[in-house]
Amino acid sequence: MATPELTTRILRRLLASGLTTRAERLIARVHAADLGPLLANLSQDETRTIVDLLFQQRRAASTISELPPEIFRQVVEAVGDDRLADVLGRLEVDDIVHLVAELPEERRSAVVGLLAEDCRADLRKAELYPEHSAGRVMTTDFVALDAKMTAQEAIDHIRARGSRGETDAILYLYVADDERLLQGVVPIRRLVTAAPDRPCGELMLREPVSVRADTDQEEVARIVARYNLLAIPVVDADGRMLGLITVDDVIDVIHEEATEDIYNLAGLDEEERVFSPVGLSVRKRLPWMVVNLATAFLAASVVGLFRHTIEQVVTLAIFMPVVAGMAGNTGVQALTVVARGIALGETEFSSGLRAVGKQFLVCIAVGAVTGCLGASVAYYWGGSPIFGLVVFVAMLLSMAVAGLAGAAVPLTLKALQQDPALGSGVLVTTFTDAVAFFAFLGIATLFLERLS
Amino acid sequence: MATPELTTRILRRLLASGLTTRAERLIARVHAADLGPLLANLSQDETRTIVDLLFQQRRAASTISELPPEIFRQVVEAVGDDRLADVLGRLEVDDIVHLVAELPEERRSAVVGLLAEDCRADLRKAELYPEHSAGRVMTTDFVALDAKMTAQEAIDHIRARGSRGETDAILYLYVADDERLLQGVVPIRRLVTAAPDRPCGELMLREPVSVRADTDQEEVARIVARYNLLAIPVVDADGRMLGLITVDDVIDVIHEEATEDIYNLAGLDEEERVFSPVGLSVRKRLPWMVVNLATAFLAASVVGLFRHTIEQVVTLAIFMPVVAGMAGNTGVQALTVVARGIALGETEFSSGLRAVGKQFLVCIAVGAVTGCLGASVAYYWGGSPIFGLVVFVAMLLSMAVAGLAGAAVPLTLKALQQDPALGSGVLVTTFTDAVAFFAFLGIATLFLERLS
Repeated sequence: MATPELTTRILRRLLASGLTTRAERLIARVHAADLGPLLANLSQDETRTIVDLLFQQRRAASTISELPPEIFRQVVEAVGDDRLADVLGRLEVDDIVHLVAELPEERRSAVVGLLAEDCRADLRKAELYPEHSAGRVMTTDFVALDAKMTAQEAIDHIRARGSRGETDAILYLYVADDERLLQGVVPIRRLVTAAPDRPCGELMLREPVSVRADTDQEEVARIVARYNLLAIPVVDADGRMLGLITVDDVIDVIHEEATEDIYNLAGLDEEERVFSPVGLSVRKRLPWMVVNLATAFLAASVVGLFRHTIEQVVTLAIFMPVVAGMAGNTGVQALTVVARGIALGETEFSSGLRAVGKQFLVCIAVGAVTGCLGASVAYYWGGSPIFGLVVFVAMLLSMAVAGLAGAAVPLTLKALQQDPALGSGVLVTTFTDAVAFFAFLGIATLFLERLS
Repeated sequence: MATPELTTRILRRLLASGLTTRAERLIARVHAADLGPLLANLSQDETRTIVDLLFQQRRAASTISELPPEIFRQVVEAVGDDRLADVLGRLEVDDIVHLVAELPEERRSAVVGLLAEDCRADLRKAELYPEHSAGRVMTTDFVALDAKMTAQEAIDHIRARGSRGETDAILYLYVADDERLLQGVVPIRRLVTAAPDRPCGELMLREPVSVRADTDQEEVARIVARYNLLAIPVVDADGRMLGLITVDDVIDVIHEEATEDIYNLAGLDEEERVFSPVGLSVRKRLPWMVVNLATAFLAASVVGLFRHTIEQVVTLAIFMPVVAGMAGNTGVQALTVVARGIALGETEFSSGLRAVGKQFLVCIAVGAVTGCLGASVAYYWGGSPIFGLVVFVAMLLSMAVAGLAGAAVPLTLKALQQDPALGSGVLVTTFTDAVAFFAFLGIATLFLERLS
């Protein structure tokens, strides 16, 4: 396959020469998921032409729903409200909700107003669910069967549907009663291999795993991954089936949540991407960086307490970054392991208190070994065994506290029902900096006479 | 559902009272994926009893294949070689490869020797593929059809298979010719809804997306996510079908790779988990922490160059952590955004050079704003406008360089075909520390007369 850059160049040349039919044939050969990188590099006029061509090929909807947010915003700038409403109208409601939220505010109501009435009603309903909940991610387009239907009747039912719309993901068939209460699930493979006259009620697996519409999407992803499901039914408080979430949407959620976890450790906003415009990135980063600056001054003020000590032993200033750096890294390691363990649901295997205790022990051991190394260098560099001892004790102490804090912060945040990774990186490193400076300079002050 | 802690307590009490039948009924009600947390907290004797019970229920294999590595190692300690070989023999070859690798070395050959001959042959073949490659993750248990088979014949074929083994994941049927060359794919839903006498050759989608056996698992996961697939065929260099990778294994790969990315930023080994024994964690962390210590001394030696300057203006020592901390955080932010963009394949939307340039601009802007704030505090604290100016220039300069380095490191590692996140965190923060100290203390030295 040609690289996206090459294909883009060919495409632009075809469009510039007015060879629309050849351009059309070219994009027809590109998978919807691969059209994103192509669209990213076109001018507004070119984008408009390509979207029109895609629309004729009935592929505009699937292409647009796969675009990353930044590219989507760039593409919609080139597309009129009418066309946009046409395109959105072909998508499933979870995708529409998602994309409407990405539209610039001033166009949102105009585009939504142009959607068909039933589509708008679905949209209004979906928007009632909390953000990041199962209700927002689910599709309401599922096949529900009656327990009395035979396998053959069920197959006929799917066939009738299949010819109508493009129901992509019939993997499980759900059995519900007259009140839409979920009773069981029939995997399509079971249906295929069953005797044609067997009723679905006999074929179905009872008590299927399901989630409530208000379940957080991260929890949904965890359940789907844990039970190796291809789709999971979404029910209301009474057990009535509302929709279903398919595994491809779950993969998107897993990526999104992993990005959020990685970003939180660095104090980044989840909306920022490699290709976000500079202005957006700056706006998103500034608040956390100002917080970071404020906390850095907190750590600095700890150093300020010991100005007199540093004045007498300037070598301390040279070793400050070593002690603080090691403590900071230790804290971030403990934090990362525990936060990731929470994210993957592994903390179930071990109680929170045990996890904190374990990190504490690990960090003491690592602190003791690296503390010895650090002390040797300090002895050699600073010229006195007392200086080595001060470095050793400061490293051991600050790394032990860092491990304790690193492990405790995400567990505490979780207990407070907050995101366990939220801003923990900044919190932990400031804290460890302050502790490291206090321990190092404090102990040095105690031994001041023998150091200077 | 009862919590794992409660279930474990009940289970232990039942076993202690010899009420095996009731224990058996209790675990029969627990899903295989939920048995892990239970097994984690049992004694060796209890584990052995439970594994025997699970074996009788024909669930030992599915339970054991779902255990996290640490718990797996703990469970196998309680289980004899014979029983272990029985259990492994029921799994698919990708799971066997994976679990055999987790066995303590001294038991590996004994257990493998007890496996059936065909199982051992499969294992030897799988182990020829490079680690983390598609060949290692694929299952060789797939349904291949002939293009001339009718839809009905294909269904009969699946039915015959289904009654034999437990083929869990028939979602796509693959059409191959006499030489096993992959020709197309028939989604099971198409088969169900097609006229019974239509040949598979007409029903199949041609040129299905496939991967080579030596493709890296991360790339496989990206392709499956991109095209929203439920399974992907694995072929050899000539296009002959070797096996297939299902979406549930892809989800495991995504989790594994995300963990690796998060861990790399903190200098952690991917094998470490929340519940790893203390000894393992310490062994895994020490090497990187020693590297970190060495690089911290590098940064410290930069400070050492300016000992004379600090002696004269001790306030500099107080502001050092502020400048270095802000630069470090800026570098890690740029690094995180770019490394994550590479991991998600988003860098396709934008060239590497553009990404670096963008990070540079963002960091200059953030550096300018926070630099002004930092300078104001420095002015107030240090008592001289020159001191404020020094802080401003040092922050702006070091944050700009940090952004450049943070963005360039993962792209360079990728260009060198290394993992873009590998140890980048330690590299970047050391570099930014050194740059920040050099910029701050260097500029201060230039203005030394007017500062002191």
